[in-house]
Amino acid sequence: MSDKVILGHERGEEIKKRVYKKASSELLAILEQFGGSIVSKRFENVVLYCDIPRDIMFPLDIVEIFKDLSDDEETMNLDNIEKALYLDWCSKTVWFLCYAHVIFDDIVDNSKTRYGKPCWHRRSDVGLSAVFDGLLIDKSIHYLMNTKFNRDIIDAVLEKLFFLDAGQTLNDMLSKVHDLDSFNRASYEKMVYLQDSTIITLPMRLAMCLAGIEDQNAVNKMQIIIAKVEVLFQMMNDYQDLFGDAELLGKEESDIQERKCSWFAVKCLEKTNPEQKELFKQNYGSEDPDRVTDVEALYSSLQMKEEFYKHKNDLCAIIDTEIASIKDAKFRQALYSVYQKSIGAKIEEAHF
Amino acid sequence: MSDKVILGHERGEEIKKRVYKKASSELLAILEQFGGSIVSKRFENVVLYCDIPRDIMFPLDIVEIFKDLSDDEETMNLDNIEKALYLDWCSKTVWFLCYAHVIFDDIVDNSKTRYGKPCWHRRSDVGLSAVFDGLLIDKSIHYLMNTKFNRDIIDAVLEKLFFLDAGQTLNDMLSKVHDLDSFNRASYEKMVYLQDSTIITLPMRLAMCLAGIEDQNAVNKMQIIIAKVEVLFQMMNDYQDLFGDAELLGKEESDIQERKCSWFAVKCLEKTNPEQKELFKQNYGSEDPDRVTDVEALYSSLQMKEEFYKHKNDLCAIIDTEIASIKDAKFRQALYSVYQKSIGAKIEEAHF
Repeated sequence: MSDKVILGHERGEEIKKRVYKKASSELLAILEQFGGSIVSKRFENVVLYCDIPRDIMFPLDIVEIFKDLSDDEETMNLDNIEKALYLDWCSKTVWFLCYAHVIFDDIVDNSKTRYGKPCWHRRSDVGLSAVFDGLLIDKSIHYLMNTKFNRDIIDAVLEKLFFLDAGQTLNDMLSKVHDLDSFNRASYEKMVYLQDSTIITLPMRLAMCLAGIEDQNAVNKMQIIIAKVEVLFQMMNDYQDLFGDAELLGKEESDIQERKCSWFAVKCLEKTNPEQKELFKQNYGSEDPDRVTDVEALYSSLQMKEEFYKHKNDLCAIIDTEIASIKDAKFRQALYSVYQKSIGAKIEEAHF
Repeated sequence: MSDKVILGHERGEEIKKRVYKKASSELLAILEQFGGSIVSKRFENVVLYCDIPRDIMFPLDIVEIFKDLSDDEETMNLDNIEKALYLDWCSKTVWFLCYAHVIFDDIVDNSKTRYGKPCWHRRSDVGLSAVFDGLLIDKSIHYLMNTKFNRDIIDAVLEKLFFLDAGQTLNDMLSKVHDLDSFNRASYEKMVYLQDSTIITLPMRLAMCLAGIEDQNAVNKMQIIIAKVEVLFQMMNDYQDLFGDAELLGKEESDIQERKCSWFAVKCLEKTNPEQKELFKQNYGSEDPDRVTDVEALYSSLQMKEEFYKHKNDLCAIIDTEIASIKDAKFRQALYSVYQKSIGAKIEEAHF
């Protein structure tokens, strides 16, 4: 395969370093040009401080997907590989998907620490100016991308940015509604579709753009399958929150306390009798450890862990079948690989 | 002129209402489609609450500039007028330029009230979730615009959004730097260029796009002249803060207390002797009324009001000359009109 010719592992790492460095200096040069050194220095400080293990947050690599999708020499040239790396840098390294997103999330959740350090907005010299920092990261990367990439790519990005923000709003609102009627499978899947499509659909979509796959049928098919992968990904996230090893994950269980519309809350409400439902309503969303324990006991009595494994296995089987039905071998392989990597990252983290 | 044929005043108002209503329902439909009723309802609530007198914040009307730029029937058709109105709605009514921008600003400044009501984030049922609301407004309008307009328009918008955020960061950082070396004319003009270009350059630029004026020379010429208009606009803002009628303006003087890099601070530092400079350093940026008075007394002894009028008149003369040198009559008229309207709005507010 030509990618092997162009990109041996070592050579690949070299190119990656070079492109990442290039993208980073281009962005700083733009910031310096328009905002002067005060603005570019501030940007550098934010990014240095918020040093986030991005491969954990974003398990997919646009270059890898792009390679799966295109092995002919014409598409698989150095220029396109560099473009894929550039996009990967934009999305993982600095872009809102990582730094800005984390800054905004921590402000709204009033979080104290992130990856073992005080959150950016918690620093006494920052405070709520962190909102402007998040916006500057978001807008400057956007501006940079717009000078580099074609309309297809910018459109895909704009759509997913919009979805992410709608998803955050939905997530936030669901945790605050008084009744629990909105805690249903439709809301859950809508929220997942909106929130997680930046993590899984977007890298796939961008790699397809780079590989020149513009057929709307292929895009639609991909979105339908990947939406299911995203539900699986989020379900496993929710499992982790409840049953994961807090020390290994670096964060405490919090979905029950924060009244999140998690897969477990939704499934639990499907199975409860009126008495149990009342118990759930009374206790879900409280910080009181006793009331958290009551919810956990309810989950246990309703065999939620078993329900989870059953649903997870059913969903895996459906995804397997749908991917297997794809005729184009390269496309099928790329989808399968995205599926495996997304879920694989979760399995590794959660020790399923 | 054909616009007079198509758009008598009453007919114009009718079209405006229809287009505004259309834009508004399209946006809500998109939000409903992707996020469901929880998200669209939230959006509506934010916008209803943050009912901002937008014509004060944004004195320019894209339709008016567009009419000045193009009186031939081909360009001046109903379709283009509707596009101009649509853009005007996006920028003034809901878009980040107004609602989102105000929400973010109030959060960072920890403001209490906005136009006589508690700020959106100050409501007990909102809090810092307001960050997500601002983001949702910003991204959804962006998404809507992207489905409607061509690359030129989207590029102009992206650039100015980036500038605005860089300008906010610069403004915020300048008010926090320890030494006052950065309080100079270059920083001031950079900040104005970045922050105010959404208010004056952007409507002009968008109207030019709609009128099909793509000549880079014209764009550059416009930017150079309008940058001076923006400095004038901001200088008058700074004057208002110091000498305006707080009751009429609905806000108290605060630039001295907030240690803003205002025109007066910059000019004062240019004129001070070492002793006065020390006095300024000791007192600028304090909430203590006595120390504020000391700064005001310093301004008065340095005849800052007279300096302001002198500089204002000089700048007006330069702008007049530069606009008069434009050969194309329509372009000249449009620039002149943008200049007059921007400054006129300030004069009306501040009672110069």
